[in-house]
Amino acid sequence: MTLEIVSASKCFGGTQYVCAHESAVTRCRMQFSAYVPPQATDRTVPVLTWLSGLTCTEENFTVKAAVQRHAAEHGLLVVAPDTSPRGANVADDEAWDLGAGAGFYVNATQAPWSAHYRMYEYVVDELPVVVSAGLPADMSRSGLFGHSMGGHGTLVIALRNPDRYRSVSVLAPICAPIQTGLGERIFGAYLGADRADWRAYDATELVKDGRNCAPILIDQGDEDEFFKAGAMKIDAFRAACEDAGQAITVRMQQGYDHGYFFVQTFMGDHVDYHAKALNG
Amino acid sequence: MTLEIVSASKCFGGTQYVCAHESAVTRCRMQFSAYVPPQATDRTVPVLTWLSGLTCTEENFTVKAAVQRHAAEHGLLVVAPDTSPRGANVADDEAWDLGAGAGFYVNATQAPWSAHYRMYEYVVDELPVVVSAGLPADMSRSGLFGHSMGGHGTLVIALRNPDRYRSVSVLAPICAPIQTGLGERIFGAYLGADRADWRAYDATELVKDGRNCAPILIDQGDEDEFFKAGAMKIDAFRAACEDAGQAITVRMQQGYDHGYFFVQTFMGDHVDYHAKALNG
Repeated sequence: MTLEIVSASKCFGGTQYVCAHESAVTRCRMQFSAYVPPQATDRTVPVLTWLSGLTCTEENFTVKAAVQRHAAEHGLLVVAPDTSPRGANVADDEAWDLGAGAGFYVNATQAPWSAHYRMYEYVVDELPVVVSAGLPADMSRSGLFGHSMGGHGTLVIALRNPDRYRSVSVLAPICAPIQTGLGERIFGAYLGADRADWRAYDATELVKDGRNCAPILIDQGDEDEFFKAGAMKIDAFRAACEDAGQAITVRMQQGYDHGYFFVQTFMGDHVDYHAKALNG
Repeated sequence: MTLEIVSASKCFGGTQYVCAHESAVTRCRMQFSAYVPPQATDRTVPVLTWLSGLTCTEENFTVKAAVQRHAAEHGLLVVAPDTSPRGANVADDEAWDLGAGAGFYVNATQAPWSAHYRMYEYVVDELPVVVSAGLPADMSRSGLFGHSMGGHGTLVIALRNPDRYRSVSVLAPICAPIQTGLGERIFGAYLGADRADWRAYDATELVKDGRNCAPILIDQGDEDEFFKAGAMKIDAFRAACEDAGQAITVRMQQGYDHGYFFVQTFMGDHVDYHAKALNG
């Protein structure tokens, strides 16, 4: 496996990379960003992986979230994959929330999506191998965080792989997609009509089924248009966690919307939260 | 004069705005961003204006520089205008460094540019009026900073209007455009063939002519491709400043390139530098 360095820029004493590789899972070229902190010059460091929201590539988080200062402070390697397979031979759709930029971190089973849309397997199995082979990463100390659709991916992946991630946090996460029209439409396309197949990709259902993970930190802005429209279902997820004994902290943030100015504001808190678990 | 709010997002307790207005100077609709810090809820606050580099709109700095955290900490209102007039009736060129996104902060005298390209007058005279009319700005406490082409604009505007700006800093600035091929080509287009007319827009010539301003802080990465190609002329500017008694600090930053990962890294230092002068 060859890791291609697309770009490299010094930032806060470390290096912000954009990397590319041929994925055996999504069967296309995939890009991800990786911030390697200054502490990694003479040792491996913990890895904090970020899952982005709808319409994003690896770039949005990398240029807008101001994570690098915090990662440099705590000595964390921060990885941010793309949100879907892409390319001339990869299926797409005119909708903004299906196809390119909208992989929803599932392994699609339905044509035409099943040929490439395997973002669950990509994030869980392939990306860690690619990262640890090419970068100074200590994968035994891994955390996972994400935003919106990437919050959904974070919760699902952490709950299904609790031994992989010592720390979990999300901002404005989609917590119960099968309870919403968005989730029903997308999961129907990717996973087929049998709703039983959707439960493996719904954080609230996973908690109800007895899955658990590291304590979860959630930040949610109360002026988030998607939150106000009922797309997040944070209350349903919190109730399921409390019933099941899953540790969860939900912080409602007054006046904040859904975008990266919100994410940037609380990025320091989230990196601190992960650093306590990963550097402890 | 009506200030249109294009967008508003809470960020670090303040608000990140994008604003628009009809400009009497550039004779087109202009956008600028303005971060209003939390301290401005009950008083006016100092204003720090950022001038961006080639190809930028007001957006690049706003989403990539991570200035908001520092502005909130120090209680500064940070304004970032676009870098040129734009629109269907505004002249443009296929070159990336002439026309849209490349106003060079001059008042063009040559057709077709002279009809709209008056970014010097826009930044010096119109923008402060628009900002103070619509936002909680104390224009008596103003600082100016910028990057690359915007570093050139910062130095020229500060040196020609020393009473306006209490603090001045630049990152990777173009310091002597008339000594470089880029400057010669662009100034020829905007200002005509008479090189005597170019001196008013060349920071090094202005210092040689006896102009001065607040102490200048410069950060420059030594892996900046434009710097390595000789486009910045920082040594010529520093020599002119030292000959003239203009206070200047040049910090060479090892390994940094020209982009916003470099800008983001040193943004905190620059805002601190301005805050000392503006809040003192």
